[in-house]
Amino acid sequence: MNIIDIILKKKAKKTLTKKELEFVIKGYVNDEIKDYQMSSLLMAININGMTDKEVLDLTDIMLHSGEVIDLSSIDGIVVDKHSTGGVGDKTSLIVLPIVACSGVKIAKMSGRGLGHTGGTIDKLESIPGFKVNLSNDDFIKQVNDIGLAIVAGNENLVIADKKIYALRDVTGNVESIPLIASSIMSKKIASGASKIVIDLKLGNGALIKNKKDAKTLANLMIKIGKFYDKEVVVFITNMDEPLGYNIGNSLEVLECIDILKNNKDGNLKDLCLNLAGMMISLGKNISFDEGLKEANEILESKRAYQKFEEWISYQNGDLTKLKVASKMFSLKSNKDGYITKIDTYKLGNLARSIKAGRYKKEDSIDYEVGFVLNKKIGDFVFEGEELVKIYINDKDLNVKDVIDCFKIEDNLVKPKLIIDIIRDNGCN
Amino acid sequence: MNIIDIILKKKAKKTLTKKELEFVIKGYVNDEIKDYQMSSLLMAININGMTDKEVLDLTDIMLHSGEVIDLSSIDGIVVDKHSTGGVGDKTSLIVLPIVACSGVKIAKMSGRGLGHTGGTIDKLESIPGFKVNLSNDDFIKQVNDIGLAIVAGNENLVIADKKIYALRDVTGNVESIPLIASSIMSKKIASGASKIVIDLKLGNGALIKNKKDAKTLANLMIKIGKFYDKEVVVFITNMDEPLGYNIGNSLEVLECIDILKNNKDGNLKDLCLNLAGMMISLGKNISFDEGLKEANEILESKRAYQKFEEWISYQNGDLTKLKVASKMFSLKSNKDGYITKIDTYKLGNLARSIKAGRYKKEDSIDYEVGFVLNKKIGDFVFEGEELVKIYINDKDLNVKDVIDCFKIEDNLVKPKLIIDIIRDNGCN
Repeated sequence: MNIIDIILKKKAKKTLTKKELEFVIKGYVNDEIKDYQMSSLLMAININGMTDKEVLDLTDIMLHSGEVIDLSSIDGIVVDKHSTGGVGDKTSLIVLPIVACSGVKIAKMSGRGLGHTGGTIDKLESIPGFKVNLSNDDFIKQVNDIGLAIVAGNENLVIADKKIYALRDVTGNVESIPLIASSIMSKKIASGASKIVIDLKLGNGALIKNKKDAKTLANLMIKIGKFYDKEVVVFITNMDEPLGYNIGNSLEVLECIDILKNNKDGNLKDLCLNLAGMMISLGKNISFDEGLKEANEILESKRAYQKFEEWISYQNGDLTKLKVASKMFSLKSNKDGYITKIDTYKLGNLARSIKAGRYKKEDSIDYEVGFVLNKKIGDFVFEGEELVKIYINDKDLNVKDVIDCFKIEDNLVKPKLIIDIIRDNGCN
Repeated sequence: MNIIDIILKKKAKKTLTKKELEFVIKGYVNDEIKDYQMSSLLMAININGMTDKEVLDLTDIMLHSGEVIDLSSIDGIVVDKHSTGGVGDKTSLIVLPIVACSGVKIAKMSGRGLGHTGGTIDKLESIPGFKVNLSNDDFIKQVNDIGLAIVAGNENLVIADKKIYALRDVTGNVESIPLIASSIMSKKIASGASKIVIDLKLGNGALIKNKKDAKTLANLMIKIGKFYDKEVVVFITNMDEPLGYNIGNSLEVLECIDILKNNKDGNLKDLCLNLAGMMISLGKNISFDEGLKEANEILESKRAYQKFEEWISYQNGDLTKLKVASKMFSLKSNKDGYITKIDTYKLGNLARSIKAGRYKKEDSIDYEVGFVLNKKIGDFVFEGEELVKIYINDKDLNVKDVIDCFKIEDNLVKPKLIIDIIRDNGCN
């Protein structure tokens, strides 16, 4: 078996065997297969696709390239949640405390910001003192004690994915359905939960830009989950505009606190209630409607906010020390009209350019900077009215670039928040 | 402009601009674009193809990545010849002396063996003393003095191609029509001749395995030539069996001497006469039939052999010292029947395994080893009759692997030597 024949086979749109995929992944992890060979194969997979069987095999091989977490010492059902990534996507910080209040446990590993999208771990680290690295024992103890924990992805989990992901990122191989499915699902399965809710972002600020691809990816992830006896439910949700109003790490934490205190309505709250409702439904084996009702009651009672405070201080975070940049500019609209479009990808990248995110893994983040939107799609804005606030420290920003992200027209557009909920239909 | 956007554009099957291709080639030569990024782009080109305009642009950029040879100080028309590579393909050593006798000049750069195929420079170096590196001045002086010269490819020509070719070789990106066309034509145009005959090999021992691809490649090379005012004629010829009977460096030189002495008939002689006839026709502006007639007369008169001797000694080679391995095995057929198929790729690789060729650039070659076929496609063989002689030194060879390259059946198959001759039809 040799890598060139395997590349040529995939180039010819043929199906790779599990043995061949094993040869590739093991060889790549061991440096026997070179980056330039792997990237050539990744592009062939990217263009020519993979059968479901190939994706299942690939997931299984990736999964076993590292440690698999055993959550059996946690009392009760553990439900996990994953977002494919977007701009202003801060749902974990709201959803998890709600779900934990219901008695369903969450032992979650999260990632850092990637490309133009933010990461839960960065957001949590904007809270001074917050510890994102826990030993496995402390992690499990915390879940048993308070019902939830979020830690940075364990370095020993799905070792192959780290190396492959870094390569995909710099070779134009991020947006491939088989590669996304195997990457997400190998990590989710290695993380040990038995029920998983996935928030698959769709739109100009997301990896996936068309609904057909979103549905294909959703069904593929459900199929993989089923193979490992994991119940997977996928929400396909709108990322044609940022989620909520705040973009940037500590700004997003502040927005979460507003929601958790039940001080603010809108899309972010709605989506969080839906995700939490589904997680409660899966965890307690009750209907989605019942789960949703319970999530609503928990949020309204402010018990979720108390759980959030308990959680943050359990992981050593000090919310009183949360800081945003002292320099703030308010950008005004130069015309009247409805917001019809927001270039979410560009806005995410502009946030990254002022250090809300990273370009290279080694880059440091400025937790204090970011944007606070005053208007979103469907809102009417008057000339001279505020569109967005910019919080900035030591980086320059061309204000026009930010304004240009907003399209203002005469027609009213109302985006749909939850585009679809996909779950196993019992067929195969 | 950035490499990831360019990769994504080609992945989406869009057309790259000349500026984008320039960015890629310059960036890659300067190490700003990494191997793993280039190989991802090469695979996207390999699968999604290129427009003729893209191939022309790519050829032009590659061509100007290095020196371009000026042959204007050579008296008379210079005609070049190129083979896309095959097993036992030794035509240059026969064709060039014939053409030189006609008064048409040849100033040729050749390459070393690549993969399972041999290279003219290795064959010439099997002649003790033969010098393959000449200064540009000596090269041109020799062509003016004796009408022909072959040197190893000038390191300063088409610098981009060397780096890209090496990468294609290890990433499954060799067999791509746009990449083959731009690689061959940039080198041929940089080499300075105004008329070029290309022997495009087609079959199981060649890069190109189907006739449609061969014709596409032929027409593309003709189109590129036309752009630079170079007349290009492409022969599509059979590589479903080795060319001639001998495979291996000094064995092939010996076979050439037999042909040049007009001692041996067959496919090799026929192809050489055709190629030489076309080169004479182009060089003298006479019909192909007249060129063919002149080539025949030159070969029969043995002037071509005298020219060969003059040439070899001009470049310091000593034919009396040519050696083949002293160890020889004769392999017999284990059944009666016609040879219907020869696995030429495998046979080429077996020759490489006994050191007739290289696996890595640094490998040394054993010039003395190789195979001498006793039977070719269409020949009848009796049980116990010799199929092939193996000349070997210090490497082991599984004899059964060699026998297995020959398929012996009841039906008579007669392969066609010259499948097509393609030249500019005057259309665009």
